[in-house]
Amino acid sequence: MTEHLVAVLGRGVVRGDEPVIFADDLGFARGDGCFDSARVVCDEAGARVVNLDEHLDRLAVSAGRMEIDGPPRQAWEALVHEALDAWTTPGEATMKFVLTRGREWFPGQGCVALLTVSEKAAATVRTASSGKAVTRGLRAVTLSTGRPSDAFADAPWLLGGVKTLSYVVNIAAAREARRRGADDAVFVTTDGFALDGPTSGLIVVTDGVMRTAPTGATGILASVTVDEILAAARAEGMEAREELVPTADLFTADGVWLVSSSRGPSPVVELDGRQLSVDEELTARVARMAGF
Amino acid sequence: MTEHLVAVLGRGVVRGDEPVIFADDLGFARGDGCFDSARVVCDEAGARVVNLDEHLDRLAVSAGRMEIDGPPRQAWEALVHEALDAWTTPGEATMKFVLTRGREWFPGQGCVALLTVSEKAAATVRTASSGKAVTRGLRAVTLSTGRPSDAFADAPWLLGGVKTLSYVVNIAAAREARRRGADDAVFVTTDGFALDGPTSGLIVVTDGVMRTAPTGATGILASVTVDEILAAARAEGMEAREELVPTADLFTADGVWLVSSSRGPSPVVELDGRQLSVDEELTARVARMAGF
Repeated sequence: MTEHLVAVLGRGVVRGDEPVIFADDLGFARGDGCFDSARVVCDEAGARVVNLDEHLDRLAVSAGRMEIDGPPRQAWEALVHEALDAWTTPGEATMKFVLTRGREWFPGQGCVALLTVSEKAAATVRTASSGKAVTRGLRAVTLSTGRPSDAFADAPWLLGGVKTLSYVVNIAAAREARRRGADDAVFVTTDGFALDGPTSGLIVVTDGVMRTAPTGATGILASVTVDEILAAARAEGMEAREELVPTADLFTADGVWLVSSSRGPSPVVELDGRQLSVDEELTARVARMAGF
Repeated sequence: MTEHLVAVLGRGVVRGDEPVIFADDLGFARGDGCFDSARVVCDEAGARVVNLDEHLDRLAVSAGRMEIDGPPRQAWEALVHEALDAWTTPGEATMKFVLTRGREWFPGQGCVALLTVSEKAAATVRTASSGKAVTRGLRAVTLSTGRPSDAFADAPWLLGGVKTLSYVVNIAAAREARRRGADDAVFVTTDGFALDGPTSGLIVVTDGVMRTAPTGATGILASVTVDEILAAARAEGMEAREELVPTADLFTADGVWLVSSSRGPSPVVELDGRQLSVDEELTARVARMAGF
Protein backbone atom coordinates (compact mmCIF):
# COMPACT_ATOMS: atom_id res chain seq x y z
CA MET A 1 0.00 0.00 0.00
CA THR A 2 1.45 3.32 -1.10
CA GLU A 3 1.52 6.09 1.44
CA HIS A 4 0.13 9.58 0.85
CA LEU A 5 -0.30 12.82 2.74
CA VAL A 6 -2.22 16.02 2.02
CA ALA A 7 -1.67 19.39 3.72
CA VAL A 8 -3.77 22.46 2.96
CA LEU A 9 -2.68 26.02 3.66
CA GLY A 10 -4.73 27.53 6.46
CA ARG A 11 -5.69 24.09 7.67
CA GLY A 12 -2.57 21.93 7.96
CA VAL A 13 -2.22 18.19 7.48
CA VAL A 14 -5.51 16.59 6.53
CA ARG A 15 -6.25 13.49 8.57
CA GLY A 16 -7.81 10.64 6.64
CA ASP A 17 -8.95 10.70 3.03
CA GLU A 18 -11.36 13.49 2.24
CA PRO A 19 -12.09 15.95 -0.59
CA VAL A 20 -10.35 19.32 -0.16
CA ILE A 21 -11.12 21.13 -3.45
CA PHE A 22 -14.39 22.85 -4.41
CA ALA A 23 -16.05 22.15 -7.78
CA ASP A 24 -15.58 25.79 -8.86
CA ASP A 25 -11.88 25.92 -8.02
CA LEU A 26 -10.27 27.49 -11.09
CA GLY A 27 -7.33 25.11 -10.80
CA PHE A 28 -9.73 22.21 -11.15
CA ALA A 29 -12.23 23.68 -13.59
CA ARG A 30 -9.73 25.36 -15.95
CA GLY A 31 -6.25 24.21 -15.04
CA ASP A 32 -5.72 27.79 -13.86
CA GLY A 33 -2.96 27.31 -11.34
CA CYS A 34 0.63 26.16 -11.07
CA PHE A 35 2.59 23.44 -9.32
CA ASP A 36 6.03 22.21 -8.53
CA SER A 37 7.48 18.85 -7.53
CA ALA A 38 10.45 18.13 -5.29
CA ARG A 39 12.25 15.07 -3.99
CA VAL A 40 11.75 13.99 -0.40
CA VAL A 41 14.25 11.78 1.39
CA CYS A 42 13.28 10.16 4.67
CA ASP A 43 15.97 8.36 6.69
CA GLU A 44 17.28 8.15 10.26
CA ALA A 45 17.80 11.93 10.25
CA GLY A 46 14.12 12.45 9.47
CA ALA A 47 12.33 13.67 6.32
CA ARG A 48 13.69 16.52 4.21
CA VAL A 49 12.95 18.17 0.85
CA VAL A 50 15.89 18.34 -1.56
CA ASN A 51 16.38 21.85 -3.00
CA LEU A 52 13.28 23.17 -1.24
CA ASP A 53 14.29 26.80 -1.75
CA GLU A 54 14.79 26.35 -5.48
CA HIS A 55 11.44 24.64 -5.90
CA LEU A 56 9.59 27.31 -3.90
CA ASP A 57 11.45 29.93 -5.98
CA ARG A 58 10.28 28.31 -9.21
CA LEU A 59 6.72 28.05 -7.91
CA ALA A 60 6.81 31.76 -7.08
CA VAL A 61 8.02 32.53 -10.62
CA SER A 62 5.16 30.45 -12.06
CA ALA A 63 2.63 32.24 -9.84
CA GLY A 64 4.04 35.63 -10.80
CA ARG A 65 3.84 34.89 -14.53
CA MET A 66 0.19 33.85 -14.04
CA GLU A 67 -0.56 36.89 -11.85
CA ILE A 68 -1.68 34.69 -8.99
CA ASP A 69 -1.16 36.31 -5.63
CA GLY A 70 0.23 33.29 -3.77
CA PRO A 71 0.88 32.87 -0.07
CA PRO A 72 4.08 34.27 1.47
CA ARG A 73 7.17 32.06 1.49
CA GLN A 74 6.97 31.54 5.26
CA ALA A 75 3.45 30.12 4.94
CA TRP A 76 4.69 27.51 2.45
CA GLU A 77 7.68 26.73 4.65
CA ALA A 78 5.50 26.25 7.71
CA LEU A 79 3.21 23.92 5.74
CA VAL A 80 6.22 21.95 4.45
CA HIS A 81 7.58 21.50 7.95
CA GLU A 82 4.22 20.38 9.27
CA ALA A 83 3.99 17.84 6.45
CA LEU A 84 7.55 16.59 6.97
CA ASP A 85 6.87 16.12 10.68
CA ALA A 86 3.93 13.92 9.76
CA TRP A 87 5.80 11.99 7.03
CA THR A 88 7.57 8.94 8.46
CA THR A 89 7.64 6.54 5.49
CA PRO A 90 11.32 5.57 5.00
CA GLY A 91 12.90 6.04 1.57
CA GLU A 92 12.15 8.39 -1.30
CA ALA A 93 8.98 10.35 -1.88
CA THR A 94 7.73 13.25 -3.99
CA MET A 95 6.36 16.49 -2.57
CA LYS A 96 4.05 18.36 -4.89
CA PHE A 97 3.07 21.99 -4.30
CA VAL A 98 -0.18 23.16 -5.90
CA LEU A 99 -1.39 26.76 -6.11
CA THR A 100 -4.64 27.74 -7.81
CA ARG A 101 -6.27 31.07 -8.55
CA GLY A 102 -8.99 30.12 -6.09
CA ARG A 103 -12.72 29.79 -6.48
CA GLU A 104 -14.68 31.15 -9.43
CA TRP A 105 -17.80 31.79 -7.38
CA PHE A 106 -16.04 33.40 -4.42
CA PRO A 107 -13.08 35.30 -5.89
CA GLY A 108 -12.68 37.28 -2.70
CA GLN A 109 -11.44 34.16 -0.93
CA GLY A 110 -8.17 34.31 -2.88
CA CYS A 111 -5.82 31.55 -3.96
CA VAL A 112 -5.86 27.94 -2.80
CA ALA A 113 -2.57 26.32 -1.78
CA LEU A 114 -1.87 22.75 -0.80
CA LEU A 115 0.86 20.15 -0.93
CA THR A 116 0.90 16.40 -1.22
CA VAL A 117 3.56 13.86 -0.35
CA SER A 118 3.51 10.43 -1.94
CA GLU A 119 5.85 7.46 -2.11
CA LYS A 120 7.92 7.43 -5.26
CA ALA A 121 6.98 4.98 -8.01
CA ALA A 122 9.56 2.29 -8.72
CA ALA A 123 12.19 3.37 -11.23
CA THR A 124 12.18 1.85 -14.69
CA VAL A 125 15.03 -0.53 -15.42
CA ARG A 126 16.00 -1.34 -19.00
CA THR A 127 18.76 -3.38 -20.54
CA ALA A 128 21.13 -1.91 -23.13
CA SER A 129 21.85 -3.74 -26.37
CA SER A 130 25.10 -4.97 -24.80
CA GLY A 131 22.96 -7.01 -22.44
CA LYS A 132 24.21 -5.06 -19.43
CA ALA A 133 21.56 -3.72 -17.11
CA VAL A 134 21.28 0.06 -17.34
CA THR A 135 19.92 1.78 -14.29
CA ARG A 136 16.68 3.51 -15.14
CA GLY A 137 17.50 3.54 -18.84
CA LEU A 138 14.66 4.77 -21.00
CA ARG A 139 13.40 3.99 -24.47
CA ALA A 140 12.02 7.24 -25.86
CA VAL A 141 10.28 8.58 -28.93
CA THR A 142 10.36 12.09 -30.38
CA LEU A 143 7.02 13.92 -30.42
CA SER A 144 6.47 17.28 -32.08
CA THR A 145 5.13 20.25 -30.11
CA GLY A 146 3.69 21.57 -33.39
CA ARG A 147 5.59 24.80 -32.78
CA PRO A 148 8.94 26.23 -33.85
CA SER A 149 11.65 26.79 -31.23
CA ASP A 150 10.85 30.51 -30.84
CA ALA A 151 7.04 30.25 -30.57
CA PHE A 152 6.91 31.63 -27.04
CA ALA A 153 8.84 34.83 -27.68
CA ASP A 154 6.59 37.84 -26.98
CA ALA A 155 3.56 35.58 -26.37
CA PRO A 156 2.99 35.65 -22.60
CA TRP A 157 -0.55 34.25 -23.04
CA LEU A 158 0.99 30.92 -24.09
CA LEU A 159 2.50 30.71 -20.58
CA GLY A 160 5.79 29.24 -21.78
CA GLY A 161 8.09 28.28 -18.95
CA VAL A 162 5.24 28.22 -16.44
CA LYS A 163 4.54 24.91 -14.70
CA THR A 164 0.76 25.25 -14.92
CA LEU A 165 -1.89 22.77 -13.82
CA SER A 166 -2.86 22.60 -17.53
CA TYR A 167 -0.50 19.68 -17.92
CA VAL A 168 -2.57 17.25 -19.95
CA VAL A 169 -0.51 17.41 -23.17
CA ASN A 170 2.47 16.23 -21.13
CA ILE A 171 0.42 13.31 -19.83
CA ALA A 172 -0.93 12.53 -23.30
CA ALA A 173 2.61 12.58 -24.71
CA ALA A 174 3.72 10.03 -22.12
CA ARG A 175 0.69 7.91 -23.06
CA GLU A 176 1.59 8.18 -26.77
CA ALA A 177 5.14 7.05 -25.91
CA ARG A 178 3.80 3.96 -24.16
CA ARG A 179 1.48 3.27 -27.08
CA ARG A 180 4.59 3.17 -29.28
CA GLY A 181 6.24 0.70 -26.92
CA ALA A 182 8.53 3.30 -25.34
CA ASP A 183 8.92 4.61 -21.78
CA ASP A 184 9.07 8.34 -22.36
CA ALA A 185 9.04 11.09 -24.96
CA VAL A 186 11.33 13.90 -26.12
CA PHE A 187 9.50 16.98 -27.37
CA VAL A 188 10.93 18.34 -30.63
CA THR A 189 10.14 21.53 -32.51
CA THR A 190 8.95 21.93 -36.09
CA ASP A 191 12.31 23.55 -36.94
CA GLY A 192 14.30 20.54 -35.81
CA PHE A 193 15.38 21.02 -32.20
CA ALA A 194 15.02 18.79 -29.13
CA LEU A 195 13.50 20.56 -26.12
CA ASP A 196 12.68 18.40 -23.10
CA GLY A 197 10.56 15.49 -21.91
CA PRO A 198 6.93 15.68 -20.79
CA THR A 199 7.98 15.53 -17.12
CA SER A 200 11.72 16.03 -17.37
CA GLY A 201 14.54 18.20 -18.66
CA LEU A 202 16.96 17.00 -21.33
CA ILE A 203 20.76 16.89 -21.19
CA VAL A 204 23.00 15.91 -24.08
CA VAL A 205 26.76 15.34 -23.94
CA THR A 206 28.78 15.34 -27.15
CA ASP A 207 32.59 15.31 -27.28
CA GLY A 208 32.79 16.35 -23.63
CA VAL A 209 30.40 19.29 -24.02
CA MET A 210 27.12 19.28 -22.10
CA ARG A 211 24.08 20.98 -23.65
CA THR A 212 20.48 21.63 -22.65
CA ALA A 213 17.80 23.68 -24.41
CA PRO A 214 17.43 27.28 -23.20
CA THR A 215 14.27 28.52 -21.50
CA GLY A 216 12.56 31.66 -22.82
CA ALA A 217 11.41 31.58 -26.44
CA THR A 218 11.32 27.76 -26.44
CA GLY A 219 8.66 27.76 -23.72
CA ILE A 220 10.37 24.96 -21.80
CA LEU A 221 10.26 24.85 -18.03
CA ALA A 222 13.34 25.70 -16.03
CA SER A 223 14.58 22.51 -14.35
CA VAL A 224 16.03 22.74 -10.86
CA THR A 225 17.94 19.49 -11.39
CA VAL A 226 19.23 20.40 -14.85
CA ASP A 227 20.52 23.68 -13.42
CA GLU A 228 22.20 21.75 -10.63
CA ILE A 229 23.87 19.38 -13.11
CA LEU A 230 25.10 22.23 -15.32
CA ALA A 231 26.56 24.07 -12.34
CA ALA A 232 28.30 20.90 -11.13
CA ALA A 233 29.62 20.17 -14.63
CA ARG A 234 31.12 23.66 -14.87
CA ALA A 235 32.60 23.29 -11.39
CA GLU A 236 34.30 20.11 -12.62
CA GLY A 237 35.69 21.97 -15.63
CA MET A 238 33.29 20.53 -18.19
CA GLU A 239 31.90 22.92 -20.79
CA ALA A 240 28.15 23.24 -20.28
CA ARG A 241 25.91 25.33 -22.51
CA GLU A 242 22.26 26.33 -22.70
CA GLU A 243 21.64 26.33 -26.43
CA LEU A 244 19.30 24.77 -28.95
CA VAL A 245 20.24 21.16 -29.64
CA PRO A 246 19.35 19.80 -33.10
CA THR A 247 17.25 16.65 -32.77
CA ALA A 248 19.69 14.88 -35.11
CA ASP A 249 22.49 15.41 -32.55
CA LEU A 250 20.75 13.09 -30.07
CA PHE A 251 21.46 10.10 -32.28
CA THR A 252 25.20 10.77 -32.39
CA ALA A 253 25.74 12.06 -28.84
CA ASP A 254 27.91 10.34 -26.25
CA GLY A 255 24.96 10.38 -23.88
CA VAL A 256 21.39 11.70 -23.59
CA TRP A 257 19.52 11.95 -20.27
CA LEU A 258 16.00 12.84 -19.24
CA VAL A 259 16.26 14.54 -15.86
CA SER A 260 13.65 15.02 -13.16
CA SER A 261 13.92 16.10 -9.56
CA SER A 262 12.32 12.92 -8.29
CA ARG A 263 14.10 10.28 -10.40
CA GLY A 264 17.28 12.17 -11.27
CA PRO A 265 18.98 11.69 -14.66
CA SER A 266 17.85 8.62 -16.62
CA PRO A 267 19.90 7.68 -19.69
CA VAL A 268 17.98 7.37 -22.93
CA VAL A 269 19.09 4.05 -24.38
CA GLU A 270 16.89 4.08 -27.47
CA LEU A 271 15.24 6.89 -29.45
CA ASP A 272 12.63 6.29 -32.15
CA GLY A 273 13.77 2.67 -32.24
CA ARG A 274 17.46 3.51 -32.75
CA GLN A 275 20.04 2.56 -30.12
CA LEU A 276 21.78 5.50 -28.51
CA SER A 277 25.27 5.50 -27.08
CA VAL A 278 25.21 4.81 -23.34
CA ASP A 279 28.29 5.57 -21.28
CA GLU A 280 27.82 4.01 -17.85
CA GLU A 281 30.68 6.00 -16.34
CA LEU A 282 29.30 9.29 -17.69
CA THR A 283 25.83 8.34 -16.46
CA ALA A 284 27.18 7.72 -12.97
CA ARG A 285 28.98 11.06 -13.11
CA VAL A 286 25.85 12.96 -14.22
CA ALA A 287 23.83 11.22 -11.48
CA ARG A 288 26.40 12.40 -8.90
CA MET A 289 26.19 15.94 -10.29
CA ALA A 290 22.44 15.78 -9.64
CA GLY A 291 22.94 14.56 -6.08
CA PHE A 292 21.77 11.01 -6.81
CA MET B 1 -25.76 37.05 -4.74
CA THR B 2 -25.13 34.69 -7.61
CA GLU B 3 -26.68 31.26 -7.40
CA HIS B 4 -24.73 28.02 -7.85
CA LEU B 5 -25.36 24.31 -7.71
CA VAL B 6 -23.06 21.27 -7.70
CA ALA B 7 -24.09 17.68 -8.47
CA VAL B 8 -21.68 14.75 -8.30
CA LEU B 9 -22.20 11.45 -10.09
CA GLY B 10 -22.94 8.69 -7.60
CA ARG B 11 -23.97 11.22 -5.02
CA GLY B 12 -26.44 13.68 -6.56
CA VAL B 13 -26.95 17.34 -5.75
CA VAL B 14 -24.58 18.53 -3.05
CA ARG B 15 -26.35 20.51 -0.36
CA GLY B 16 -24.45 23.49 0.92
CA ASP B 17 -20.92 24.51 0.02
CA GLU B 18 -18.36 21.78 0.53
CA PRO B 19 -15.24 20.42 -1.19
CA VAL B 20 -15.95 17.51 -3.55
CA ILE B 21 -12.57 16.89 -5.23
CA PHE B 22 -9.58 15.05 -3.73
CA ALA B 23 -6.09 16.56 -3.86
CA ASP B 24 -4.84 13.71 -6.07
CA ASP B 25 -7.64 13.99 -8.62
CA LEU B 26 -5.87 13.95 -11.99
CA GLY B 27 -8.25 16.57 -13.31
CA PHE B 28 -7.12 18.89 -10.56
CA ALA B 29 -3.46 17.95 -10.33
CA ARG B 30 -2.74 17.73 -14.09
CA GLY B 31 -5.72 19.10 -15.97
CA ASP B 32 -6.28 15.50 -17.08
CA GLY B 33 -9.98 15.55 -17.82
CA CYS B 34 -12.49 17.19 -20.11
CA PHE B 35 -15.53 19.42 -19.80
CA ASP B 36 -18.40 20.92 -21.70
CA SER B 37 -20.68 23.90 -21.14
CA ALA B 38 -24.31 24.33 -22.10
CA ARG B 39 -26.97 27.01 -21.80
CA VAL B 40 -29.71 26.61 -19.21
CA VAL B 41 -33.00 28.47 -19.50
CA CYS B 42 -35.33 28.60 -16.51
CA ASP B 43 -38.83 30.05 -17.00
CA GLU B 44 -42.47 29.20 -16.18
CA ALA B 45 -42.05 25.85 -17.95
CA GLY B 46 -39.17 24.93 -15.62
CA ALA B 47 -35.44 24.63 -16.20
CA ARG B 48 -34.00 23.01 -19.36
CA VAL B 49 -30.62 22.57 -21.02
CA VAL B 50 -30.39 23.82 -24.61
CA ASN B 51 -28.89 21.21 -26.97
CA LEU B 52 -28.20 18.79 -24.11
CA ASP B 53 -27.72 15.83 -26.47
CA GLU B 54 -25.15 17.67 -28.57
CA HIS B 55 -23.18 18.76 -25.50
CA LEU B 56 -23.17 15.26 -24.02
CA ASP B 57 -22.12 13.95 -27.45
CA ARG B 58 -19.21 16.37 -27.56
CA LEU B 59 -18.20 15.47 -24.01
CA ALA B 60 -18.21 11.79 -25.00
CA VAL B 61 -15.98 12.59 -27.99
CA SER B 62 -13.57 14.47 -25.71
CA ALA B 63 -13.50 11.56 -23.24
CA GLY B 64 -12.92 9.07 -26.05
CA ARG B 65 -10.01 11.04 -27.49
CA MET B 66 -8.46 11.12 -24.01
CA GLU B 67 -9.18 7.43 -23.40
CA ILE B 68 -11.18 8.22 -20.29
CA ASP B 69 -13.83 5.64 -19.60
CA GLY B 70 -16.67 7.99 -18.68
CA PRO B 71 -20.06 7.18 -17.20
CA PRO B 72 -22.89 5.94 -19.44
CA ARG B 73 -25.13 8.54 -21.08
CA GLN B 74 -28.09 7.63 -18.87
CA ALA B 75 -26.05 8.38 -15.74
CA TRP B 76 -25.28 11.90 -17.03
CA GLU B 77 -28.92 12.41 -18.01
CA ALA B 78 -30.15 11.34 -14.60
CA LEU B 79 -27.70 13.73 -12.93
CA VAL B 80 -28.80 16.56 -15.26
CA HIS B 81 -32.45 15.99 -14.41
CA GLU B 82 -31.74 15.90 -10.71
CA ALA B 83 -29.85 19.20 -11.03
CA LEU B 84 -32.58 20.82 -13.13
CA ASP B 85 -35.21 19.80 -10.57
CA ALA B 86 -33.18 21.60 -7.93
CA TRP B 87 -32.47 24.68 -10.09
CA THR B 88 -35.21 27.29 -9.67
CA THR B 89 -33.37 30.56 -10.36
CA PRO B 90 -35.31 32.30 -13.18
CA GLY B 91 -33.42 33.41 -16.28
CA GLU B 92 -30.30 32.15 -17.99
CA ALA B 93 -27.61 29.96 -16.47
CA THR B 94 -24.66 27.81 -17.56
CA MET B 95 -24.37 24.09 -16.94
CA LYS B 96 -20.84 22.77 -16.93
CA PHE B 97 -20.05 19.05 -17.16
CA VAL B 98 -16.67 17.95 -15.81
CA LEU B 99 -15.13 14.50 -16.25
CA THR B 100 -11.69 13.60 -14.88
CA ARG B 101 -9.52 10.51 -15.16
CA GLY B 102 -10.06 9.99 -11.44
CA ARG B 103 -7.64 9.73 -8.56
CA GLU B 104 -3.91 9.18 -8.98
CA TRP B 105 -3.57 7.27 -5.72
CA PHE B 106 -6.64 5.07 -6.20
CA PRO B 107 -6.86 4.40 -9.96
CA GLY B 108 -9.25 1.52 -9.39
CA GLN B 109 -11.95 3.99 -8.37
CA GLY B 110 -12.30 5.15 -11.98
CA CYS B 111 -13.32 8.51 -13.38
CA VAL B 112 -14.89 11.40 -11.48
CA ALA B 113 -17.92 13.14 -12.99
CA LEU B 114 -19.78 16.19 -11.78
CA LEU B 115 -21.75 19.13 -13.08
CA THR B 116 -22.25 22.66 -11.91
CA VAL B 117 -24.99 25.18 -12.67
CA SER B 118 -24.34 28.88 -12.19
CA GLU B 119 -26.13 32.08 -13.07
CA LYS B 120 -24.87 33.65 -16.27
CA ALA B 121 -22.60 36.66 -16.01
CA ALA B 122 -24.03 39.88 -17.42
CA ALA B 123 -23.41 40.29 -21.14
CA THR B 124 -20.95 42.88 -22.34
CA VAL B 125 -22.50 45.88 -24.09
CA ARG B 126 -20.42 48.04 -26.42
CA THR B 127 -21.23 50.94 -28.68
CA ALA B 128 -20.29 50.93 -32.36
CA SER B 129 -18.51 53.90 -33.94
CA SER B 130 -21.86 55.05 -35.31
CA GLY B 131 -22.92 55.72 -31.72
CA LYS B 132 -25.66 53.09 -31.88
CA ALA B 133 -25.66 50.57 -29.09
CA VAL B 134 -24.59 47.13 -30.30
CA THR B 135 -25.86 44.21 -28.28
CA ARG B 136 -22.94 42.36 -26.78
CA GLY B 137 -20.50 43.82 -29.27
CA LEU B 138 -16.90 42.93 -28.55
CA ARG B 139 -13.59 44.65 -29.00
CA ALA B 140 -11.07 41.92 -29.77
CA VAL B 141 -7.37 41.47 -30.39
CA THR B 142 -5.62 38.79 -32.44
CA LEU B 143 -3.28 36.50 -30.49
CA SER B 144 -1.02 33.91 -32.08
CA THR B 145 -1.23 30.26 -31.09
CA GLY B 146 2.44 29.94 -32.05
CA ARG B 147 1.46 27.12 -34.41
CA PRO B 148 0.61 26.81 -38.11
CA SER B 149 -2.93 25.87 -39.12
CA ASP B 150 -2.08 22.19 -39.63
CA ALA B 151 -0.12 21.62 -36.40
CA PHE B 152 -2.55 19.07 -35.01
CA ALA B 153 -2.57 16.73 -38.00
CA ASP B 154 -1.25 13.30 -36.95
CA ALA B 155 -0.39 14.58 -33.45
CA PRO B 156 -3.02 13.06 -31.13
CA TRP B 157 -0.86 13.84 -28.06
CA LEU B 158 -1.56 17.56 -28.61
CA LEU B 159 -5.26 16.78 -27.98
CA GLY B 160 -6.49 19.16 -30.65
CA GLY B 161 -10.26 19.46 -30.70
CA VAL B 162 -10.58 18.09 -27.18
CA LYS B 163 -12.14 20.37 -24.57
CA THR B 164 -9.71 19.42 -21.81
CA LEU B 165 -9.49 20.80 -18.30
CA SER B 166 -6.05 22.11 -19.32
CA TYR B 167 -7.66 25.36 -20.33
CA VAL B 168 -5.29 27.92 -18.85
CA VAL B 169 -3.94 29.30 -22.14
CA ASN B 170 -7.51 30.21 -23.06
CA ILE B 171 -7.89 32.04 -19.74
CA ALA B 172 -4.51 33.74 -20.13
CA ALA B 173 -5.45 34.86 -23.65
CA ALA B 174 -8.63 36.48 -22.33
CA ARG B 175 -6.52 38.20 -19.65
CA GLU B 176 -4.08 39.44 -22.31
CA ALA B 177 -7.03 40.83 -24.28
CA ARG B 178 -8.22 42.78 -21.25
CA ARG B 179 -4.67 44.01 -20.64
CA ARG B 180 -4.79 45.48 -24.15
CA GLY B 181 -8.09 47.20 -23.41
CA ALA B 182 -10.19 44.69 -25.34
CA ASP B 183 -12.97 42.29 -24.33
CA ASP B 184 -11.88 39.12 -26.07
CA ALA B 185 -9.31 37.52 -28.33
CA VAL B 186 -9.21 35.79 -31.71
CA PHE B 187 -6.56 33.08 -32.00
CA VAL B 188 -4.57 33.27 -35.24
CA THR B 189 -2.02 30.86 -36.71
CA THR B 190 1.56 31.55 -37.71
CA ASP B 191 0.58 31.00 -41.35
CA GLY B 192 -2.05 33.73 -41.28
CA PHE B 193 -5.42 32.20 -40.50
CA ALA B 194 -8.06 33.08 -37.89
CA LEU B 195 -9.22 30.10 -35.80
CA ASP B 196 -11.53 30.85 -32.87
CA GLY B 197 -11.76 32.68 -29.57
CA PRO B 198 -10.49 31.44 -26.21
CA THR B 199 -14.02 30.46 -25.15
CA SER B 200 -15.95 30.78 -28.42
CA GLY B 201 -16.16 29.79 -32.05
CA LEU B 202 -15.69 32.29 -34.89
CA ILE B 203 -18.04 33.06 -37.76
CA VAL B 204 -17.24 35.40 -40.64
CA VAL B 205 -19.67 36.58 -43.33
CA THR B 206 -18.32 38.11 -46.54
CA ASP B 207 -20.44 38.88 -49.59
CA GLY B 208 -23.25 36.68 -48.32
CA VAL B 209 -20.98 33.67 -47.66
CA MET B 210 -20.57 32.38 -44.10
CA ARG B 211 -17.26 30.81 -43.10
CA THR B 212 -15.84 29.18 -39.98
CA ALA B 213 -12.49 27.44 -39.48
CA PRO B 214 -12.54 23.64 -39.84
CA THR B 215 -11.80 21.32 -36.94
CA GLY B 216 -9.18 18.59 -37.39
CA ALA B 217 -5.66 19.74 -38.26
CA THR B 218 -6.33 23.21 -36.83
CA GLY B 219 -6.92 21.75 -33.35
CA ILE B 220 -9.96 23.96 -32.75
CA LEU B 221 -12.89 22.69 -30.73
CA ALA B 222 -16.10 21.76 -32.47
CA SER B 223 -18.75 24.32 -31.46
CA VAL B 224 -22.31 23.14 -30.95
CA THR B 225 -23.63 26.65 -31.56
CA VAL B 226 -21.48 27.29 -34.64
CA ASP B 227 -22.73 24.01 -36.11
CA GLU B 228 -26.29 25.10 -35.35
CA ILE B 229 -25.76 28.45 -37.07
CA LEU B 230 -24.19 26.87 -40.17
CA ALA B 231 -27.06 24.40 -40.47
CA ALA B 232 -29.62 27.20 -40.12
CA ALA B 233 -27.78 29.36 -42.66
CA ARG B 234 -27.79 26.54 -45.20
CA ALA B 235 -31.48 25.91 -44.50
CA GLU B 236 -32.10 29.58 -45.33
CA GLY B 237 -30.21 29.21 -48.61
CA MET B 238 -27.04 30.99 -47.46
CA GLU B 239 -23.72 29.48 -48.53
CA ALA B 240 -21.87 28.31 -45.41
CA ARG B 241 -18.40 26.76 -45.51
CA GLU B 242 -15.94 25.23 -43.10
CA GLU B 243 -12.63 26.46 -44.45
CA LEU B 244 -9.57 28.34 -43.32
CA VAL B 245 -10.26 32.07 -43.10
CA PRO B 246 -7.27 34.38 -43.66
CA THR B 247 -6.89 36.75 -40.72
CA ALA B 248 -6.81 39.67 -43.17
CA ASP B 249 -10.36 38.80 -44.28
CA LEU B 250 -11.74 39.69 -40.84
CA PHE B 251 -10.98 43.37 -41.43
CA THR B 252 -12.94 43.50 -44.70
CA ALA B 253 -15.82 41.14 -43.79
CA ASP B 254 -19.46 42.20 -43.59
CA GLY B 255 -19.60 40.75 -40.10
CA VAL B 256 -17.49 38.78 -37.60
CA TRP B 257 -18.97 37.02 -34.57
CA LEU B 258 -17.56 35.17 -31.59
CA VAL B 259 -20.05 32.46 -30.71
CA SER B 260 -20.58 30.57 -27.48
CA SER B 261 -23.37 28.35 -26.27
CA SER B 262 -24.02 30.50 -23.24
CA ARG B 263 -23.92 34.01 -24.77
CA GLY B 264 -24.74 33.19 -28.39
CA PRO B 265 -23.13 35.15 -31.25
CA SER B 266 -21.49 38.45 -30.24
CA PRO B 267 -20.47 40.77 -33.07
CA VAL B 268 -16.82 41.86 -33.05
CA VAL B 269 -16.97 45.63 -33.47
CA GLU B 270 -13.24 46.29 -33.28
CA LEU B 271 -10.18 44.11 -33.96
CA ASP B 272 -6.64 45.15 -33.05
CA GLY B 273 -7.92 48.71 -32.70
CA ARG B 274 -9.50 48.83 -36.17
CA GLN B 275 -13.27 49.23 -36.56
CA LEU B 276 -15.02 46.28 -38.18
CA SER B 277 -18.17 46.44 -40.23
CA VAL B 278 -21.22 45.73 -38.05
CA ASP B 279 -24.51 44.87 -39.73
CA GLU B 280 -27.25 44.98 -37.09
CA GLU B 281 -29.72 43.15 -39.30
CA LEU B 282 -27.25 40.37 -40.06
CA THR B 283 -26.36 40.14 -36.37
CA ALA B 284 -30.03 39.71 -35.47
CA ARG B 285 -30.33 37.03 -38.14
CA VAL B 286 -27.26 35.11 -36.90
CA ALA B 287 -28.59 35.34 -33.33
CA ARG B 288 -31.89 33.83 -34.48
CA MET B 289 -29.99 31.05 -36.26
CA ALA B 290 -28.33 30.25 -32.93
CA GLY B 291 -31.67 30.19 -31.11
CA PHE B 292 -31.10 33.48 -29.27
